[in-house]
Amino acid sequence: MGKGSGEAVKSKSPAEFFADNQNIAGFDNAGKSLYTTIRELVENSLDAAESIGALPHISLTIEEFTEEEFNEHRGMDNRDVVDAGLFKASGGKKSTSKATKALPKPAVAEEGSADDPQEPSAAAGATAADLDPKEKKAKNDKKGRSKGDSHSLYYRVKCKDNGVGMPHDKIPDMLGVVLSSSKYGVRQARGKYGMGAKMALIWSKKSTGLPIQVVSGCSSDVKDPPNFLTKCVLDIDIYKNRPSVHEHVKLPNPEGWRGTEMTVCVSGNWQTYKSRVLQYLQQLAIITPYAELELEYHSHANPKKDLTAVYRRRSEQMPPLAYEVKHHPGSVNNLLVQQLIHRTKCKDLVGFLMKDLSSIDRPLSERIIAELGEGFHPKMQPSALTVKMVSRLTQMLRDVKRFKPPDGACLSPAGEYNLRQVKEGVNVYRFANRIPLLFEAGSDVVTRVAMKRINWSSYKVDHKRDKIGVFVSTVSTKIPFKGTSKEYIGDDTEEIKKAVKHALQQCCQQLRTHLLRRNALREQKERKKVLTKYIPDVSRAVFGLLTAMQKRARDGEEDKGGGAGGASKRARGATAKTQIMASLDSKEVTEKTLAAGLSAAVNQHDAEAAKEESVAAGRGTHSRQV
Amino acid sequence: MGKGSGEAVKSKSPAEFFADNQNIAGFDNAGKSLYTTIRELVENSLDAAESIGALPHISLTIEEFTEEEFNEHRGMDNRDVVDAGLFKASGGKKSTSKATKALPKPAVAEEGSADDPQEPSAAAGATAADLDPKEKKAKNDKKGRSKGDSHSLYYRVKCKDNGVGMPHDKIPDMLGVVLSSSKYGVRQARGKYGMGAKMALIWSKKSTGLPIQVVSGCSSDVKDPPNFLTKCVLDIDIYKNRPSVHEHVKLPNPEGWRGTEMTVCVSGNWQTYKSRVLQYLQQLAIITPYAELELEYHSHANPKKDLTAVYRRRSEQMPPLAYEVKHHPGSVNNLLVQQLIHRTKCKDLVGFLMKDLSSIDRPLSERIIAELGEGFHPKMQPSALTVKMVSRLTQMLRDVKRFKPPDGACLSPAGEYNLRQVKEGVNVYRFANRIPLLFEAGSDVVTRVAMKRINWSSYKVDHKRDKIGVFVSTVSTKIPFKGTSKEYIGDDTEEIKKAVKHALQQCCQQLRTHLLRRNALREQKERKKVLTKYIPDVSRAVFGLLTAMQKRARDGEEDKGGGAGGASKRARGATAKTQIMASLDSKEVTEKTLAAGLSAAVNQHDAEAAKEESVAAGRGTHSRQV
Repeated sequence: MGKGSGEAVKSKSPAEFFADNQNIAGFDNAGKSLYTTIRELVENSLDAAESIGALPHISLTIEEFTEEEFNEHRGMDNRDVVDAGLFKASGGKKSTSKATKALPKPAVAEEGSADDPQEPSAAAGATAADLDPKEKKAKNDKKGRSKGDSHSLYYRVKCKDNGVGMPHDKIPDMLGVVLSSSKYGVRQARGKYGMGAKMALIWSKKSTGLPIQVVSGCSSDVKDPPNFLTKCVLDIDIYKNRPSVHEHVKLPNPEGWRGTEMTVCVSGNWQTYKSRVLQYLQQLAIITPYAELELEYHSHANPKKDLTAVYRRRSEQMPPLAYEVKHHPGSVNNLLVQQLIHRTKCKDLVGFLMKDLSSIDRPLSERIIAELGEGFHPKMQPSALTVKMVSRLTQMLRDVKRFKPPDGACLSPAGEYNLRQVKEGVNVYRFANRIPLLFEAGSDVVTRVAMKRINWSSYKVDHKRDKIGVFVSTVSTKIPFKGTSKEYIGDDTEEIKKAVKHALQQCCQQLRTHLLRRNALREQKERKKVLTKYIPDVSRAVFGLLTAMQKRARDGEEDKGGGAGGASKRARGATAKTQIMASLDSKEVTEKTLAAGLSAAVNQHDAEAAKEESVAAGRGTHSRQV
Repeated sequence: MGKGSGEAVKSKSPAEFFADNQNIAGFDNAGKSLYTTIRELVENSLDAAESIGALPHISLTIEEFTEEEFNEHRGMDNRDVVDAGLFKASGGKKSTSKATKALPKPAVAEEGSADDPQEPSAAAGATAADLDPKEKKAKNDKKGRSKGDSHSLYYRVKCKDNGVGMPHDKIPDMLGVVLSSSKYGVRQARGKYGMGAKMALIWSKKSTGLPIQVVSGCSSDVKDPPNFLTKCVLDIDIYKNRPSVHEHVKLPNPEGWRGTEMTVCVSGNWQTYKSRVLQYLQQLAIITPYAELELEYHSHANPKKDLTAVYRRRSEQMPPLAYEVKHHPGSVNNLLVQQLIHRTKCKDLVGFLMKDLSSIDRPLSERIIAELGEGFHPKMQPSALTVKMVSRLTQMLRDVKRFKPPDGACLSPAGEYNLRQVKEGVNVYRFANRIPLLFEAGSDVVTRVAMKRINWSSYKVDHKRDKIGVFVSTVSTKIPFKGTSKEYIGDDTEEIKKAVKHALQQCCQQLRTHLLRRNALREQKERKKVLTKYIPDVSRAVFGLLTAMQKRARDGEEDKGGGAGGASKRARGATAKTQIMASLDSKEVTEKTLAAGLSAAVNQHDAEAAKEESVAAGRGTHSRQV
C-alpha cells in the first residue's frame, strides 16, 4: 500500500457492517429487535412453504426468561452478589465536576438497551451507602440484581414450518454469510438477501452470545418425504463473514417430516412490542389467508403473561408462484448491461439481446444493432463492447420504445384475502410482496397518497366519519424499501405514487357508483314508503269525493236547470264523469280498488326511477375523472 | 459444497449489494441521487478541512448537459436516428391481449428513471405510423431523440476543498472499496464508512458508466504544503469490491495547494431537487458558520438556469475537534467484548478492562474481576475467556453502575451558529453531527417531539401563530440514522427521545420566562402609558377642585355660621385643608406640581411592579415542571 500519510484505511466485512448498523435492518432497540426477529423467521417460513406449493403452516413459540433463568438454562452459574457497591451509581457530583466534558449518560446507548426503562436514579450519597447492610440485603433478593435491572429479559424464539427445508450441506452458507442468498433473480420474493435470519443470528450473538439452531428436513417434492433430518448449530464469524459451525449432523426422520425449525435466543422486550407482533400476525392472516399461523407465548417467571393465538387457514387457494424472468430492456443501466455481458453464454450480440433481456425477438435485436451504427455488428462478441459502446447500448435500450411490456409472470399478487372491519376514518393497511408493513406509516407512499392525494368527498365519502379501509398490496420484483428491514416504501418513486393513486381512484370510483346507487335506492325506498303510507287516506278521500259527486249528480238530475252557465263546463267532463259514476254504481270503483290503483302507480314509478338511476350511475363511472 | 438439492447459494459483494439497493444510501431516484451525490461530497470536504483545523472553503460546480452534449463531451458520436419506429411504443393492444400476465409498465422502474416525467403516451396506431415521414422529421429534430426523453440530462459535479487531502497511495482503496474507511473508532464524524463517495461512484457507473476523478494535494500539517499533487481516475469492480484504476499519477504542485477536488459525472434531475440543494447549503451555513460555501450551476443548453450562490464565512471560530475515545463499559454487548478481546494488546484481564474500556481504573477492574467469581483471575489472558465467560463479563459490565459517565471529548457540538428568521408556526431544523437533515421529517424524532410532545401553550407560546424556530443539533459517536443516507433519526430510541424533549423543555422554560417578563413589561408599559395619559386631566381636575374648595372656604369664612351641623366634620379635616389652602396660596400646589407628583407616583409604582414581576418570573422557572 505504500508510505502515504494519514489514517489507515480499514475495511469491514458486510457482517461487521450490519452488526454495527443493525437499525438499517429493523433492529433498532431490544423490543424492535425481538419483533423483527420474529417476522423475519415467519417470512422465511412462508417463502419456504410457498416455494413448493405447500399451504403454509407456521408455529411460533416464544419463551421469556429472566437473566437468572436464562443463565441457568444455558448452564451458567448465577452467583450471589458479593460487592454490592458495584451495582450502584458512583457519586455523580464528584466525577462530573472533575471531568469537564463528561456526559450525564452515554449519548446514544448501544441499541440493545435503547428501550429499557430508565433506572431509578441512585441519588447522591451512594458512595457512603456502599456497605449499608439493609441495602445489601435488598440487593441480594432475586440473586442480587436490582429490580430495575432490565437487561434481564431473554427470549427463545422458535419458528417451525412445513416448507421446502434447507439442504444439509448448504445450511452453514445459507445462514452464516451476510449477503449470501438463494433468492437472487428477477422475481417477486418476500426476502431477497436472506438478511433477516442472519441479522437475527447477529443479534443473538450480540445480545446473548448464543448460536442459532436449525433442524430441517429437506425435500422440494411434496410427495417425496426427506429420509433424514439435519441438525445444525451455528454462529457467524463477523470479521470473516463466514459461518462458525458448532454442530452439523444428520438425524433419523422416521415420520418423514419436511420443514424447518429455527431456534434463536435473543434479549428483547416483549411488553413494548407484543401488540405489534399480534398486529403483524393479524395482517398476515388478511393477506395470506391460505396460511395457518400459531403463536404460543410463555413466560417462565410470570405465567400471567402467557398467550396463545391461532389464525386459522381460511382458504385453500394459494396465488400462483412467481417465476423468475429476465430483465426488461427499458430498465437497464450501464452496470447491469456490463453484468449481463459478463455473465452471458451467448457468443454474439444479436443473441445476447434476445436471450439475456426480455421482450426482444430477432428482428428487433437486429434493428437495434443496426441503429447502434458504426462499430456494432450482430455477430460481434458481447465482451468486445468497450465502455463507451456499453453506454451507447444502454442509452439505446432506454430510449427505444418498441419493447413489449414486461412479463407479469415474475409477480404473484394477492389471491383471496380476508378483509377486516375497520374503525371510523381512513384506515390504511399496507402490504408489500404479501408482507404487512406496520412501521413508518407517515412516510409510506400508500399512507401519503390515501391521506393527501385522494379527494374523498368527491367520491361521496366522508373521510372523517365513514369507516374506510384502504388495503393496498404492492407486488414487485424489487420493492424500493427504505432500509433492508422492509418497513415502508418511500414516497419518492413517482411510478409507485402514480400506480397507488390510480388504483385507489379506481376503487373509489367503484365505491362512488355503489354509494350513489345505494343512496338512490335508499331515497327511492323512502319515497315509496311515504307514498304508500298515504294511499289509504288518499283513496278514502278520493272515494269520499267521488261519492259526494255522485250524490250531487243525482241531486242535480232531480233538480234540473240549476244555473245554465255551468252547463258547458259540465258537458266537457260529462263522458268521464258518466263513466266514473257508472263504475261507482257497478262497484267497479271502491275505496279498495282506488288504493290498489295508487299502489300500482307508485310501484311503477319506483321501477322506472330505479332504472333511470342505474343508467345515470353507470354513465357517471365512465365520464367522471377526479 | 456437496450434493444438497435446491437453489444455489450465491454471495454478493458489499459493492454489489449497495449498487442493488442504492435507495438505502439516499439514491432513490435520479433527482435524489444528484442531491445525495452533492451532499456526500460536501460533507467529505467539511470533514477533511476540520480534521486539520482549517476553516473549510468549499467550491461546488455543477454543469448540466443534454445527452447529446454529454456524449460529445465524452467523445461519443451522436448518430442520427435511422429507424425512427424503434423510438415509439409498440402497439400495446395486441401484445397485452396475447400475454395474459403482461404488465402495462415495469412495475418498479429501475431507480435511475424513477422521477422522470411521464412520457406523452404514444397512442394506438403507432405501428402503422412507423414510416410516416412527418413523424420521422419530428424525431430527427435534436438529433433524433423525442422531446419527452428525460434520460437526457447529465451532470458533472465538482467539489473542491481546502482539506487534508488524500494520500497518494491510499486513494484507490479509500474510494474503490465499499465498507472501507479511515474513520472507524468511537468519535463523532459526519460520515463513518465513507459510503457517500463510493455510492456516488457506483451511481456514476450505473448512470453514465464514467469513472470518478480525484485531484488532491495531501498534507496533514497546515504549515507544510504538499510538494506534489495526485491525479487519480478510478472506477469500482462491483463484483470484487476492488478499485479499478484508470489513471494514477503525481503532478507538480508549484503553488503548494492542499485539498481535494472530486469530479463525478452522473445522470440526474436538477429541476426537482434544486430547492433541496439550496436548502441544504443554507442550513449548512447555519450550523457551520465557519465554512465558506460556494455553488455555481451552469447549464450548457439553457444558460437561463445558471445560478451562483455564496454562503460567506461568518465566524472564524471552529468547534474543537472530536477525539477518539474508548468504549464505555455500560454500552458493551457480547460481540463487542469478543472483538475487544480479539484486538487487545493486554496480556491480563485486569489490564484489559482498564485499557480497552473507558471509566475503569485498577481498583474497579479488580473489584469487577473478584465479583465475576470462579474461573476469573486478574492475571488470566483475555483470550482464555470462553463464550459463557464472555457472556458473564458482558452481563456484569452492563449491570455494574459504578462507572463514571462517558467522556465527552469524543463529541464536538455546534459552536457558534447562525439562526434564521422563521415563518409562523413551529419550524423544525434538524442537525446531526453538524449535518442538516432535510428528508423524512415526519418520522424524525426531533420533529415528532416538537410537534407532539411539547405543550407549547404551557410555555405561553401560541404554536400556530407565533414564529417558532426549533433548531436541534444532535451530536454523537453513533447517530442511529435509519439507512446509511443520514436522512433522519428514528423515533424509537428512547434515550434520544428523552434528551430531545428535555432540551426543548429547557429552552421553552427559558423562553417562557422571557415571554412572561416581556409580557409583564409590556403590560406595565401599557399601564404607565394610560396613567400618564390622564395625568394632565387629573391634575387639572384636582387643581380645579382644590381652587373651588379654596374659594368656598373663603366664601364660608366671609359668611360664617353657615349651618352648625357641618362644623365638626370640617374641624377634622381642618389642619390638612388649612395646609392645602396654604400651599395653594403660596403657589406650592399648582396644576403643574400636581402633575409632577402624579408622574412620580406612577413611576414609583411601575418600578415596584417590575421588581415584583421579575421575582415572580424567577420563582416560576424553578417551581414549574411541564
